[in-house]
Amino acid sequence: MLHASASVVIAWLMGAAGGAYVLWQLKQVLSCEQGNDTMREISAAIQEGASAFLGREYRILAVFVAIVAVIMTIFLQWQSALCFVVGAVASAGAGYLGMYVAVRANVRTAAAASHGLHEGLRVAFGSGAIMGMSVVSFSLLGMTTLYLVFSGNANQLVYVTGFGFGASSIALFARVGGGIYTKAADVGADLVGKVEQGIPEDDPRNPAVIADNVGDNVGDVAGMGADLFESYSGSIIAAATLGAAFGGDAAGAFIGLPFLVAAVGVLSSLFGIYIVIGEEWDQGINTFIGKLPAAIGGVAAQGFKFIKSHLAQIDENASLAELLATLRRSVWGASVAVLGLSLLAVLLAGVSIYYWLVILAGLIAGNAIAYVTEYYTSYTEKPTQGISEATQTGAATTIIQGLAVGMMSTVLPVLIVAVAILISIWLGMKADGTIAAGLYAVALSGVGMLSTLGVTLATDAYGPVADNAGGIAEMSHLPHEVRLRTDALDSLGNTTAATGKGFAIGSAVLTALALLAAYVAAAKVENLNVLSPTMLPGVLIGAMLPYLFSALTMMAVGRAAHQIVLEVRRQFREIPGLMEGTGKPDYKACVGISTESALHQMILPGALAVVVPLVVGFVLGKEALAGLLIGATASGFLLAVMMANAGGAWDNAKKWIETGEYGGKGSDAHKAAVVGDTVGDPFKDTSGPALNILIKLMSIVSLVFASAFGSGWLSF
Amino acid sequence: MLHASASVVIAWLMGAAGGAYVLWQLKQVLSCEQGNDTMREISAAIQEGASAFLGREYRILAVFVAIVAVIMTIFLQWQSALCFVVGAVASAGAGYLGMYVAVRANVRTAAAASHGLHEGLRVAFGSGAIMGMSVVSFSLLGMTTLYLVFSGNANQLVYVTGFGFGASSIALFARVGGGIYTKAADVGADLVGKVEQGIPEDDPRNPAVIADNVGDNVGDVAGMGADLFESYSGSIIAAATLGAAFGGDAAGAFIGLPFLVAAVGVLSSLFGIYIVIGEEWDQGINTFIGKLPAAIGGVAAQGFKFIKSHLAQIDENASLAELLATLRRSVWGASVAVLGLSLLAVLLAGVSIYYWLVILAGLIAGNAIAYVTEYYTSYTEKPTQGISEATQTGAATTIIQGLAVGMMSTVLPVLIVAVAILISIWLGMKADGTIAAGLYAVALSGVGMLSTLGVTLATDAYGPVADNAGGIAEMSHLPHEVRLRTDALDSLGNTTAATGKGFAIGSAVLTALALLAAYVAAAKVENLNVLSPTMLPGVLIGAMLPYLFSALTMMAVGRAAHQIVLEVRRQFREIPGLMEGTGKPDYKACVGISTESALHQMILPGALAVVVPLVVGFVLGKEALAGLLIGATASGFLLAVMMANAGGAWDNAKKWIETGEYGGKGSDAHKAAVVGDTVGDPFKDTSGPALNILIKLMSIVSLVFASAFGSGWLSF
Repeated sequence: MLHASASVVIAWLMGAAGGAYVLWQLKQVLSCEQGNDTMREISAAIQEGASAFLGREYRILAVFVAIVAVIMTIFLQWQSALCFVVGAVASAGAGYLGMYVAVRANVRTAAAASHGLHEGLRVAFGSGAIMGMSVVSFSLLGMTTLYLVFSGNANQLVYVTGFGFGASSIALFARVGGGIYTKAADVGADLVGKVEQGIPEDDPRNPAVIADNVGDNVGDVAGMGADLFESYSGSIIAAATLGAAFGGDAAGAFIGLPFLVAAVGVLSSLFGIYIVIGEEWDQGINTFIGKLPAAIGGVAAQGFKFIKSHLAQIDENASLAELLATLRRSVWGASVAVLGLSLLAVLLAGVSIYYWLVILAGLIAGNAIAYVTEYYTSYTEKPTQGISEATQTGAATTIIQGLAVGMMSTVLPVLIVAVAILISIWLGMKADGTIAAGLYAVALSGVGMLSTLGVTLATDAYGPVADNAGGIAEMSHLPHEVRLRTDALDSLGNTTAATGKGFAIGSAVLTALALLAAYVAAAKVENLNVLSPTMLPGVLIGAMLPYLFSALTMMAVGRAAHQIVLEVRRQFREIPGLMEGTGKPDYKACVGISTESALHQMILPGALAVVVPLVVGFVLGKEALAGLLIGATASGFLLAVMMANAGGAWDNAKKWIETGEYGGKGSDAHKAAVVGDTVGDPFKDTSGPALNILIKLMSIVSLVFASAFGSGWLSF
Repeated sequence: MLHASASVVIAWLMGAAGGAYVLWQLKQVLSCEQGNDTMREISAAIQEGASAFLGREYRILAVFVAIVAVIMTIFLQWQSALCFVVGAVASAGAGYLGMYVAVRANVRTAAAASHGLHEGLRVAFGSGAIMGMSVVSFSLLGMTTLYLVFSGNANQLVYVTGFGFGASSIALFARVGGGIYTKAADVGADLVGKVEQGIPEDDPRNPAVIADNVGDNVGDVAGMGADLFESYSGSIIAAATLGAAFGGDAAGAFIGLPFLVAAVGVLSSLFGIYIVIGEEWDQGINTFIGKLPAAIGGVAAQGFKFIKSHLAQIDENASLAELLATLRRSVWGASVAVLGLSLLAVLLAGVSIYYWLVILAGLIAGNAIAYVTEYYTSYTEKPTQGISEATQTGAATTIIQGLAVGMMSTVLPVLIVAVAILISIWLGMKADGTIAAGLYAVALSGVGMLSTLGVTLATDAYGPVADNAGGIAEMSHLPHEVRLRTDALDSLGNTTAATGKGFAIGSAVLTALALLAAYVAAAKVENLNVLSPTMLPGVLIGAMLPYLFSALTMMAVGRAAHQIVLEVRRQFREIPGLMEGTGKPDYKACVGISTESALHQMILPGALAVVVPLVVGFVLGKEALAGLLIGATASGFLLAVMMANAGGAWDNAKKWIETGEYGGKGSDAHKAAVVGDTVGDPFKDTSGPALNILIKLMSIVSLVFASAFGSGWLSF
């Protein structure tokens, strides 16, 4: 049986290896050519805007982090506060790095796409891989370092929970702030540019065009990175905490197992990345094999040759379908690798083999949800085509059909998660006899689901880079074929992003429930009876919070977009020759307004997520808070899936029409589809994904403050 | 301390009194003049269509009722099955009567409105009063009769639960079937008539115009009547069942109290109705007083004079504002009367005075929710005006803003219900020391909230009659001022309907929770721990069901509307001279298609609501079912409020623009507002209200079959 610290050290080493890869890959991406002067200039403007936004956002969050750290020091211990700060900094760091490379990879992707599809993919995917691997490495390095620093202390895991809280807080603000920014700029740019002035998307005459491109980076890259950073950290913390609570003598093995699974996940993710862009590694690997003793080296060389011959790396002239197949293979390859290696991890930890089945269940569930997500949002399938058909009778039926598809799309993910929970609990109880073991298994299946995050996030995060590259190609008047290639890469990214979303939401629910279980243990909630006096009101209030949160974020997008509309209109009115291309738009003004209003609008919903659980916990007591978490998790899960899938389906229903169906671009059907797409924007890129974080943040706040809650001031 | 049977007998007597009033009022309404031949002809067509729909609907439901009755006889007892059948018949009867009078009152209202606003109100409100009072009387008579028939049997209350199940089943099918019919006909008529052919609403050339008018009656009248019939019955059954479970020696008093409160509610509702249309009663009352012994008679006559002088009945030339004030006064007057009389009921029952405070809490909560509903959906307030403002930037922002308002509008109702639950539980525990007493108090506050249903339903149900009257006025080319008057009555009805909706949703949640508590007691669910193995999956599945249900009903409206669109287009294409007014449209074909498709589409969602709880209860066990009910109640409550209020707000945002704001009718802003209104139609009239029933039906199915569930086939 492996000691917990040993597992943690292994995870630390793998985290460090991942970090080393990130640095190497960063060098590779930055060394690519940057294209002509116009391209560099545009890219510089995007870089400047994105840096300015993140800089200001982090300055605001620093104040928030400082206040919370002081509160934690007073009500809890300085160690928790320290972990909180480290978690916040690590999450912000991963987000910043992802953004840093994305705003530099965009122009390089555009330049590379001038040579071919494959070259473009290589740069964009490299950027995504940096994001994916930096998220898992920073998270693993941060948690394991803190765990080792506090080793010997009985509360060492309790402190590390603070890391998750820090990561969640940054995630929520980054998702909400970035989400508002990106959609406000997008909607604002479209409403005046496309609708009122009739100029195409990404036209350099549109004053909001740079803000729109900045938005892709701060929302879809930095926001998503922070989001998954906290999912990943939260799932490991929840499993380790539950392992400590139920494990008894074997607690060390149960605490260590999630770290081990994460560690093998890093390796497997690197394998997945290798499948897509690993050619550069070959020389290094061969050199390494050459240095091995002849006997081993010979076998290794043959083995490597065998693997390579079966991996079928991308051909220079690969078609889009071949690229998609490669991306799929990379995610599946990583999954298979995780399964093999985690069997080793389970044996090494010395726990029941049933826990390996739990990890398997988590991985299968994640892939199943991803499949369902793709079914409901892909325009080659019936649900989205049904929305396209509904556009024929106008915008209203488009909206009704889209909402109905979104609602319908919740059914299978809920059933999949419910079955995953039932199987996990059953396996855990089979292995160790107690319900506590079953809940630990639920947490572990969440870890399994996210173990390949390094590569799934890479397939997700390269999309916005390709999108941006397309914008740069358009604005700098590159040949049309370049734009076609970046568009192809972008649409490929949209398809693979569905996979990422499926894993994100599925793991969010499992993690939130595991954190809830950890909270219940930590707060010593004795009366968990659903009919206890304060439980029912707690459930209702919890179920309401995702609605309040979504209302606030949607209204925020509306308000921020409105300010941009006013500014863009002003510029078209006041700057002479803007439409004719002789006047120069003031991009910075739009970037400034987007930044200002997104940050301003981010504060209320963000603060709410932290404050409400604390208020309920102190006023109504810890039972009510448990009810609140259940209500919020269930209701938030449903609303998040509904919004994300309705948004995705509207987007693709529009794209389906743009392929020429129902009259194609410019037809009445297309106009109706654009309405659906615009409604879907804040659904899928602001409110929906933020709900994933909300439910986990509330659980982790409760867990961190568990020891401070009593039976409530209004005690019965 | 009053024996339960004595209280029940009192309730029976009041139910009979209410029934007598219904017959008398029916004679009054039917004796009104019916206008000219064209009007009679149109009204006859509507009557024929509505009768045909209800007839066919009831024939389908008879099959369903028969199957369920057989199942109940096999798995439970024949007594439960009998009560189930009686509940179904009573609910269908109240719905049929409401529809019967509504389709006759519409033409009479149109005729009366030729003479003045007040005359129109008198007929329409009389029709609403028949609906309201027949719902409460039929429900009370049915339940009390069954209770008395089975007196002496230890299971007498268990059997009566079957009555609630019967009522709920009919309610769900009636709401869903009627809701699909009315919105499909409405959307279908508008899409071709208004949008494609450019003819006004209610134009006799539109082949779907009769179907549209039939829809108002089968959806908003019969559907709503069945809906509130089951709310009312369910709340009383839940309270009585919980009273029997916890009351011990005093059980009789606790069982009787909800019946007594309902009984005084009948009296109070009659008082409320008197305030609006009581002039005809005066002579009868005076005659009655004259027959009293001189000493009493003198005091009574003076008292009556005093009351009348303070009631300020409607002036013949009352303005719209005065009419609204009168309607408000009638609801408030009934509430005050209930409070006074229920104090008497509490004293008579011999239970703690705290229970009177519980009833008070329920009534205040109901009124508070009604106030919030009105705030969020009235165009004189900021939320709806905000939607009107959003129409300026197009349909997409209109939809986003409307959804955000709908989501935001859930916050206060949830908090109000949560506080009402906390206060009720606290008072109940204060009175009798146990949590069971607290849960009984929750049920009782639901009874309090619905006690004035007789009059609140009257203020709600007269709206569709006025709406229909307007259609008839339009189609039979009555002077424009008649249409203006019926429009005024209609808009008055929209305002007061908000009150009814507030009571309906608030009481639905309290009743569903009370039924859940009754189920838990009846099924002897021992492990109610929210972290028990099957509870969490149960909660998630439960939270998903309202989404599935809404998706199915919204898609059903879309499909049914599509069929009508095709038929209307066909008629415009194939019937010569239809547009010129020389050809005659085939109204019956549209009515037939609406009927056919609504009934066809009603079956799946309806059956789902009954089948899913049974499947979960048998397969996953009674704990999972408890979790399912909690998840469904919380999630359904939120979704129902969101949909109802978003729908109402969109409707009124359009009306606000039609008053001349943002360019008025025909402007681009108005077009965007029409999109919002069309999306809102199935929200507020099909899916939203059906969710109220769904959550109660699932609870009552579980309660009825409670004794049959075990630990589940998949036991852990």
